[in-house]
Amino acid sequence: MKSSACTAGCANQSEQSCICTKLVKIAKVRKYFGGRIVKTVLFALLDKWADWEAAYLSSALQMLGQNQFSNRVLSLTKDPVESIGGFRVVPDCDLQSVPADYDALILIGGMSWRDTSAQQLKSLIESCLIDGKVLGAICDASAYLGTIGVLNSVRHTSNDLNDLKAWAGDAYTGEDNYVREQAVRDCNVITANGTAALEFAQEVLLALKVAPEEAIHEWYQFHKLGYYSAPLPGDATSWNEE
Amino acid sequence: MKSSACTAGCANQSEQSCICTKLVKIAKVRKYFGGRIVKTVLFALLDKWADWEAAYLSSALQMLGQNQFSNRVLSLTKDPVESIGGFRVVPDCDLQSVPADYDALILIGGMSWRDTSAQQLKSLIESCLIDGKVLGAICDASAYLGTIGVLNSVRHTSNDLNDLKAWAGDAYTGEDNYVREQAVRDCNVITANGTAALEFAQEVLLALKVAPEEAIHEWYQFHKLGYYSAPLPGDATSWNEE
Repeated sequence: MKSSACTAGCANQSEQSCICTKLVKIAKVRKYFGGRIVKTVLFALLDKWADWEAAYLSSALQMLGQNQFSNRVLSLTKDPVESIGGFRVVPDCDLQSVPADYDALILIGGMSWRDTSAQQLKSLIESCLIDGKVLGAICDASAYLGTIGVLNSVRHTSNDLNDLKAWAGDAYTGEDNYVREQAVRDCNVITANGTAALEFAQEVLLALKVAPEEAIHEWYQFHKLGYYSAPLPGDATSWNEE
Repeated sequence: MKSSACTAGCANQSEQSCICTKLVKIAKVRKYFGGRIVKTVLFALLDKWADWEAAYLSSALQMLGQNQFSNRVLSLTKDPVESIGGFRVVPDCDLQSVPADYDALILIGGMSWRDTSAQQLKSLIESCLIDGKVLGAICDASAYLGTIGVLNSVRHTSNDLNDLKAWAGDAYTGEDNYVREQAVRDCNVITANGTAALEFAQEVLLALKVAPEEAIHEWYQFHKLGYYSAPLPGDATSWNEE
């Protein structure tokens, strides 16, 4: 029986919990941070961004991260930026107001990474790498990284190697580092193909140490396999108890 | 080799395609509708809605639906409604401006279905059923349906039977119709647990006949198994060729 009392801070007033609670309980984080936000994660969205590529990561940062993480939506302007599914999201910042003290920059795929306007993000990405922050890119955003020379010295993946080579041209010399896996993490750079929303999220969560590794893997399995097939959460009580 | 030329209408200018294109190509819809929107799908979002529970369905309606579907975000007010992941979405309509001629009402789970404010949606849900439109509810939104008597005469699922019974009380007499599966479709009512975003989307796509069944199943497998494990798309050329 997987049911238990609610600890997720939701409006569930019953003795039994909603599934959100179960997801949070996986982490079993015992030591809180007093409500203080300690890490900021920027989600870069362009017009016609891919809904599913952002959804698991954004929510898991909050549900596993126990008040440690602040997600901020970045776009080219502060106008609402529409997803493929037609959801219009209000950016928290544009390139003129992006916070300097962020901890991770996550580039969400979609239909606009090949527009010339996407070049406006190049300098932010380069400074992210220079500062050693976490950089994630999924689907066409990962191929965009190839076009600006970011993938030449790290193990990486993308939607398709031939597409990456054709688009990036001479800027891409990293074929030997291309890995045919759903998501690849090399140091602080995470890349993934467009069917790897969960794997991408898992690797970013691990890179940011959002929760104990065991808890992150269990969160992944819970969503990948589903409620009736996932193993029962194990014990991850050592997280933040030192 | 799964690569092919772009047909998705994205900004991809290379000879090779982005993965979005591959997803669209699965459908192989040969006959278009002249750009005319023929079906409207309402996504009801409440404060702290679950990002992942909406993402696959909203995007697939557009990517498989070939201009047939218009997604409209409904909330209790027209103020931006924030997801668990912190994405603030601008509603297209509130309860005062909801279009009368919609085709499906999709209730996305989250942290607010147990707030008293959620009761404002009850009459819309009841009229949706009376009119024989498609009604989908995932995670805590499915349990909400139990509290207003919707689940007593249809096969259904939710996050947890005991939670459903405890919350709904006497309003729920449908225990014999509870199915321990990721997602359940009975006529025009689709329910799912919170780890079943893909299964929920698949059932709604089938109910709305968004694409040929084979194409919908292939879309599901592509995302469920991932790019390297999913079977190559088959032939679904009979769709809309009559």
